[in-house]
Amino acid sequence: MNQQTNQSWGGRFNEPTDAFVEKFTASVDFDRRLYHHDIRGSMAHATMLERVGVLTVEERDTILEGLAEVEKEIESGQFPWSVALEDVHMNIEARLTEKIGITGKKLHTGRSRNDQVATDIRLYLRDEIDTLEAELIRLRSGMIELADREADTIMPGFTHLQTAQPVTFGHHLLAWQEMIARDHERLRDCRKRVNVMPLGAAALAGTTYPIDRHVTAELLGFERPAENSLDAVSDRDFAIEFVSFASLLLMHLSRMSEELVLWTSAQFDFIDLPDRFCTGSSIMPQKKNPDVPELVRGKSGRVYGHLVGLLTLMKSQPLAYNKDNQEDKEPLFDTLDTVKGCLKAFADMVPAIEAKADNMHEAARRGFSTATDLADYLVRRGVAFRDAHEIVGQSVAHGLERHKDLSEMSLAELRQFSTAIDEDVFEVLTLEGSVAARNHIGGTAPDQVRAAAQRARDALATTAGPTAAEGN
Amino acid sequence: MNQQTNQSWGGRFNEPTDAFVEKFTASVDFDRRLYHHDIRGSMAHATMLERVGVLTVEERDTILEGLAEVEKEIESGQFPWSVALEDVHMNIEARLTEKIGITGKKLHTGRSRNDQVATDIRLYLRDEIDTLEAELIRLRSGMIELADREADTIMPGFTHLQTAQPVTFGHHLLAWQEMIARDHERLRDCRKRVNVMPLGAAALAGTTYPIDRHVTAELLGFERPAENSLDAVSDRDFAIEFVSFASLLLMHLSRMSEELVLWTSAQFDFIDLPDRFCTGSSIMPQKKNPDVPELVRGKSGRVYGHLVGLLTLMKSQPLAYNKDNQEDKEPLFDTLDTVKGCLKAFADMVPAIEAKADNMHEAARRGFSTATDLADYLVRRGVAFRDAHEIVGQSVAHGLERHKDLSEMSLAELRQFSTAIDEDVFEVLTLEGSVAARNHIGGTAPDQVRAAAQRARDALATTAGPTAAEGN
Amino acid sequence: MNQQTNQSWGGRFNEPTDAFVEKFTASVDFDRRLYHHDIRGSMAHATMLERVGVLTVEERDTILEGLAEVEKEIESGQFPWSVALEDVHMNIEARLTEKIGITGKKLHTGRSRNDQVATDIRLYLRDEIDTLEAELIRLRSGMIELADREADTIMPGFTHLQTAQPVTFGHHLLAWQEMIARDHERLRDCRKRVNVMPLGAAALAGTTYPIDRHVTAELLGFERPAENSLDAVSDRDFAIEFVSFASLLLMHLSRMSEELVLWTSAQFDFIDLPDRFCTGSSIMPQKKNPDVPELVRGKSGRVYGHLVGLLTLMKSQPLAYNKDNQEDKEPLFDTLDTVKGCLKAFADMVPAIEAKADNMHEAARRGFSTATDLADYLVRRGVAFRDAHEIVGQSVAHGLERHKDLSEMSLAELRQFSTAIDEDVFEVLTLEGSVAARNHIGGTAPDQVRAAAQRARDALATTAGPTAAEGN
Amino acid sequence: MNQQTNQSWGGRFNEPTDAFVEKFTASVDFDRRLYHHDIRGSMAHATMLERVGVLTVEERDTILEGLAEVEKEIESGQFPWSVALEDVHMNIEARLTEKIGITGKKLHTGRSRNDQVATDIRLYLRDEIDTLEAELIRLRSGMIELADREADTIMPGFTHLQTAQPVTFGHHLLAWQEMIARDHERLRDCRKRVNVMPLGAAALAGTTYPIDRHVTAELLGFERPAENSLDAVSDRDFAIEFVSFASLLLMHLSRMSEELVLWTSAQFDFIDLPDRFCTGSSIMPQKKNPDVPELVRGKSGRVYGHLVGLLTLMKSQPLAYNKDNQEDKEPLFDTLDTVKGCLKAFADMVPAIEAKADNMHEAARRGFSTATDLADYLVRRGVAFRDAHEIVGQSVAHGLERHKDLSEMSLAELRQFSTAIDEDVFEVLTLEGSVAARNHIGGTAPDQVRAAAQRARDALATTAGPTAAEGN
Repeated sequence: MNQQTNQSWGGRFNEPTDAFVEKFTASVDFDRRLYHHDIRGSMAHATMLERVGVLTVEERDTILEGLAEVEKEIESGQFPWSVALEDVHMNIEARLTEKIGITGKKLHTGRSRNDQVATDIRLYLRDEIDTLEAELIRLRSGMIELADREADTIMPGFTHLQTAQPVTFGHHLLAWQEMIARDHERLRDCRKRVNVMPLGAAALAGTTYPIDRHVTAELLGFERPAENSLDAVSDRDFAIEFVSFASLLLMHLSRMSEELVLWTSAQFDFIDLPDRFCTGSSIMPQKKNPDVPELVRGKSGRVYGHLVGLLTLMKSQPLAYNKDNQEDKEPLFDTLDTVKGCLKAFADMVPAIEAKADNMHEAARRGFSTATDLADYLVRRGVAFRDAHEIVGQSVAHGLERHKDLSEMSLAELRQFSTAIDEDVFEVLTLEGSVAARNHIGGTAPDQVRAAAQRARDALATTAGPTAAEGN
Repeated sequence: MNQQTNQSWGGRFNEPTDAFVEKFTASVDFDRRLYHHDIRGSMAHATMLERVGVLTVEERDTILEGLAEVEKEIESGQFPWSVALEDVHMNIEARLTEKIGITGKKLHTGRSRNDQVATDIRLYLRDEIDTLEAELIRLRSGMIELADREADTIMPGFTHLQTAQPVTFGHHLLAWQEMIARDHERLRDCRKRVNVMPLGAAALAGTTYPIDRHVTAELLGFERPAENSLDAVSDRDFAIEFVSFASLLLMHLSRMSEELVLWTSAQFDFIDLPDRFCTGSSIMPQKKNPDVPELVRGKSGRVYGHLVGLLTLMKSQPLAYNKDNQEDKEPLFDTLDTVKGCLKAFADMVPAIEAKADNMHEAARRGFSTATDLADYLVRRGVAFRDAHEIVGQSVAHGLERHKDLSEMSLAELRQFSTAIDEDVFEVLTLEGSVAARNHIGGTAPDQVRAAAQRARDALATTAGPTAAEGN
Repeated sequence: MNQQTNQSWGGRFNEPTDAFVEKFTASVDFDRRLYHHDIRGSMAHATMLERVGVLTVEERDTILEGLAEVEKEIESGQFPWSVALEDVHMNIEARLTEKIGITGKKLHTGRSRNDQVATDIRLYLRDEIDTLEAELIRLRSGMIELADREADTIMPGFTHLQTAQPVTFGHHLLAWQEMIARDHERLRDCRKRVNVMPLGAAALAGTTYPIDRHVTAELLGFERPAENSLDAVSDRDFAIEFVSFASLLLMHLSRMSEELVLWTSAQFDFIDLPDRFCTGSSIMPQKKNPDVPELVRGKSGRVYGHLVGLLTLMKSQPLAYNKDNQEDKEPLFDTLDTVKGCLKAFADMVPAIEAKADNMHEAARRGFSTATDLADYLVRRGVAFRDAHEIVGQSVAHGLERHKDLSEMSLAELRQFSTAIDEDVFEVLTLEGSVAARNHIGGTAPDQVRAAAQRARDALATTAGPTAAEGN
Repeated sequence: MNQQTNQSWGGRFNEPTDAFVEKFTASVDFDRRLYHHDIRGSMAHATMLERVGVLTVEERDTILEGLAEVEKEIESGQFPWSVALEDVHMNIEARLTEKIGITGKKLHTGRSRNDQVATDIRLYLRDEIDTLEAELIRLRSGMIELADREADTIMPGFTHLQTAQPVTFGHHLLAWQEMIARDHERLRDCRKRVNVMPLGAAALAGTTYPIDRHVTAELLGFERPAENSLDAVSDRDFAIEFVSFASLLLMHLSRMSEELVLWTSAQFDFIDLPDRFCTGSSIMPQKKNPDVPELVRGKSGRVYGHLVGLLTLMKSQPLAYNKDNQEDKEPLFDTLDTVKGCLKAFADMVPAIEAKADNMHEAARRGFSTATDLADYLVRRGVAFRDAHEIVGQSVAHGLERHKDLSEMSLAELRQFSTAIDEDVFEVLTLEGSVAARNHIGGTAPDQVRAAAQRARDALATTAGPTAAEGN
């Protein structure tokens, strides 16, 4: 087997590759998942070579049929993968030549593994991005609909995890949707830079064959051929940009996960997650654990790690291709798998969240969450802001002592702190009054939430449109 | 001084803040650099408050004049910064009130420090991005012009740092330019997401005052108000996206730096860097060290680190604002300073690079860099590719033994390995012939390099245009 | 000023350093904090030079007196720091020579800035480590004493943030102490590797002067001179190891912070933090925010970032010293400052935590936290474990429906699920019984907690001892 | 299959786990590699349970035999792994119970998956550490012997990648050995903290069964049981510390790799790597690429990434066990595999490095590397250091112009710059004289290198001893 490898570049060498080194430097165990895109790229390359006269029609057809057969073998699990053949590209090419003879060797005319692998990764990543977009749309849609349903549900809004002001649960869910919408936008920006074709860069300098890169680019759905051959085979910034997108997405999902974990705790008890998203304990029979959000939260580390790995990989590498670059694939692939899994889990789970509206309402009622409203009330009554703040602070201190919320105090009790307070204060101190009063774009008032949900729905519809069209 | 702090939120508190805690939690030492944007934001807010009837025209004017005076004090170095006042916002507001009395307090109507700080950072970052864009344009332009001048200069192209094929120095420089062009594009994409206004989100839920966020957004040059108040005060993904851009840029600059360091070594000796970009040694009188590229290469670590810092910061933070977020500023500011310094250094230095064309040419001549051309020659003569590769491999082995490059062998010597070789082989074995033959889009042929330089020049002109227009 | 710089290495140069480059590459703004250790190192070096006969006694004394004067100038704020003189070392040496004339120049005999800076950082870091150790001891001690006081206080133990089993608060605090104890141990291991002397490595290869490195090492309290000059001037793994320690410490502090934030929320309400460690809100008068733990939690990102920065910095640097290494100082210094601040904050705050024992107890009582105890009870009664688990699961489901904890059900109610349950079950279902039963080393029983506190106290006493002794 | 899972904790649940969630949350695909240590831990646990009277002798023996059979099944590839059974622990326990009936269930008495998994990882990691130590010793030994052989070989020493001073190749190799020696020391320090036993912590609070943790610890070779049950099940700092060690090791290997890549370039041409460690190119017949060092250099990113992943994972996790922790295993396992592969590659490759002594010598001769020696010579002749530096700088400038090294100039030529120069200067300007003169501990003189190699050899012998002894 070893002999076979060396035959492709052995003329200059005096001894075979060390067996451990062969295994250590081989990539076929992880890059074989590129097989479909490798074959697709080869087919386009062969088609172009015929158009420019390097291959005859017959040669091209023999190659295309041979490649189709190889793909079938792979998909049926009968392909004889070989570590000695290093990578997915050599495996496929060697098998093609076994099948169709010497014509198989002509496929490599005018290209090199360096531009071939860069092309394969971009094709693969582009397809995966399109899959991810579908999940992002499903998740955003689930959030918007749940937000709409929960536009009137009141919960405590937190800052510093201390009760701050009442908000609506729908408003909170739309905050989530905004985060994901920006991630979605970033993914689309990233896709533009992925969708550029390295093929034709050959090893690093281009090729002496009369290739037509515009033809290949069109066949593969690329927006354009890469402008510079050295850059095309050596840079991996498109992959790092993708993992940056993924890191921000996982950051956002980890924040939502943290909240889901908090909200399902006995202490908060704001929501219920259906049993099918939870697991129990083999030792503690009462447990129902929010495994899915916990695991997603944990997976943020994994993706951050891959980002650091790739940035480190490329740091100070001189041009053009270096073997280091082989290390680009595993972190990218694992990031893709992780993001797909997390998005699917969230897109399934979010619509199934059951709000415990009573518990939320009660929690909002008890945390002096309308203290700001009282201060605003006093200001409207002509009290200077600084004095109003002080008055409310004293009322809260009094409430803490007596275990009473502001709305539970009598008028007399409240007037101890300021005679500017009148009977109408109790309208201000209700949660419903508080949220309804924040009635401007971006505010938490139920009407604003419903309007924002509608705008988000419209924006999503617009976004979803061009995606398919622009594709390949 | 401590008393002063507590007066703004002290009603509920029984003891003053611990002196160390006050210092530990204060941010004024680093956030004071936001002063201009804080004042600018306050002016817009006051203007809007007057338009909606919350402030009178007189109040507004008093505030605007007061703020202008405060800014003058800061810029003349006479402003009494106080750690007890925690941050830049409280310092400015307190000083304003000292100057104009109780009206100063009205400025804070309908906003909170949470939306204020988020607005300030975005305004500041947007301005800095515009500054960076100018440097990016200068750098790209310098690369393009040098590439054009060096379109015919031949150097060895490397893969695995082994001589691979001859390329032109201009082609190599355009590879650099492509990297920076993508970074530039990413920066512009990032700017879109920075340029959204949090103001009006107040503490987290919006405000009960009848604010008009579209007015403020327009006054501040923001594209639109943020859609959701909880999201607006709590997310920092725009800052992380910026630092991701910066990490990719520094990754690219570190690659170029690595090459500059290699090329100025005695072993490569491909270029000269003017003395003004180098330093010497206090102990070794012969030394001329490429300090600037070395330092830039090292600074990639700094920026990567800030990216990790910010991603970690935001991981699993529940909504909305938490004190953790105070840690967003220093890494962002230091990233900005670092990027600005590195870009300036490179934009100054790149046009001053002096190619040592003879050394480059000689290096390309000696590394068997035209071996691929010989193989291609044999294939054109009807030799099967696999056989051609083997023949050339043997010729190289022979050359290594005799210390002769392919072009230095006699015809007889070459024909030892294949009788398909004829007198015309020597045209193929010249470096000039080799590079000229790679004559397609993205290839290294001098004509292609000149054409690519022209396209890059045109693209840059187009890019540069809208920037200013779209601004604020 | 520029002239002055160039005079130290200008013989080979044709133009002065570019003004921006001078500033960009200077380090004196941040490395001046090494002044004391730089002077201390120079004093030891001068002393050694006299012992080996390179300096006369008079020269040595002149130098020592000059250096002492320079230090006084620095400490009184009168030292004329100059960016043109690049760094702290050149600034001090230039000033020394200004003061004592040509003899000042002799100080640099047999050393270089490369070994000088490596020595300074190690001396500085070693001293800072000793300071940190004192804070670690104070923090651990505070945890142990609080744990001892709270050995009987029962709280819910959580897994997945779901109530799992009752534990004692003291036990929880000792878990914290264990984490910090390991960090402390790591710091001591790190110190061993910091305490090795680079001085004598000169630029990279050693020196031709007859230096005695053992003398200098002894004078500076180093355990031994570094074994290899190339390694001594180029590696920074000791600094990275320190920042790894710091990252683990901040990881631990972030976990404790997260718990403090949770426990001070209205939903948990398990503890009170004294007002002096909290801040309020300028807009929401009821707020009391746990700023200190939030900020410490956030600072974990900063330190993780520095770790990544330093690892990136050193990645693939060829030997020996490169300018990149100048970037080692700022992350190290900021890590030190951060760790010192966070440790001080925690060491001050932990002993002031006030447990709300009733709330903790009530929370433990309500979460079916003794379900495992009921299962164990059934197993002791001969029920197979799998059946016992099922029985308890059904009881919990019943309790959830009726809003009753297990201990609130009547015997009849419980016997619905298993007739193996008898009157004595209620002893098992009490929290006190549950914790007392976990009575083995490492278990949560109050007696175990007190014993563990005593062991921790003893271990700390032993640890604290040798520290001072082993030092310098 | 799903039914089977739910039976272990299903009493409280109303619907089965979602099929995707089951797969998303399962870990058996990667944690099955713990099987041997899981079984070993279970055997020790069963043995202890019999000693304290919880199991009968017969029950214990049945369990031990059953576990032995299960292990055989696994090793022969016949074990029916099931994703529905979540992880390696449940798979093994379920299979045991299938084999030996209800007694199998008793094995889980007094423990939980939480302490079980923590124990398994520590056992596994400890064994892997011991394997790594053997490779570290082999690598260090290879470096020492090569250094000894190359103690007289002269090469240029670099700073800033500019020729600085001549050093010996042996000295350079010993710099490498010092780095690895420190990494080795760190690994041993880490092992102390790994070798502590969580078993007995149960779910989080300990167990009500009368376990004897000292017995289990002794059976498993642990130094002691963990002091605190909450800490034991929740912390993963030992794993992060290991990955920190690995990051520093890979950082060092990446530096060596960078040098190997440089040295095998045509420009440096300092060494030869045997063909068996290199690969060729399918397109460029002349190429011989240093794949192994390139790949190792690239793998530093991978390990840095895992470090960040794990630090992120643990950031702000409240006690005790959370599902996030499942994410600890893959980065740890991949780090172990990576480190093992890289160490093996280096330990095989380093002794096979062939120095091209003539090229090294020539490079040292040409870079004005003895300029410092000339300056020292002048100082010894009474010239002030500053003047000497200037004189040498001018000589170098002259040499650069005439393309002559210092040693190639005539005495007359040298005396142009200083009349203090005499015939004996040429002894100083030889490379041999230069290195021999750096004759102190840590210096590059051949005798020092040989002595240092001997010390390193002795230290290694001492280190290697206790390792085995201290083990398990």
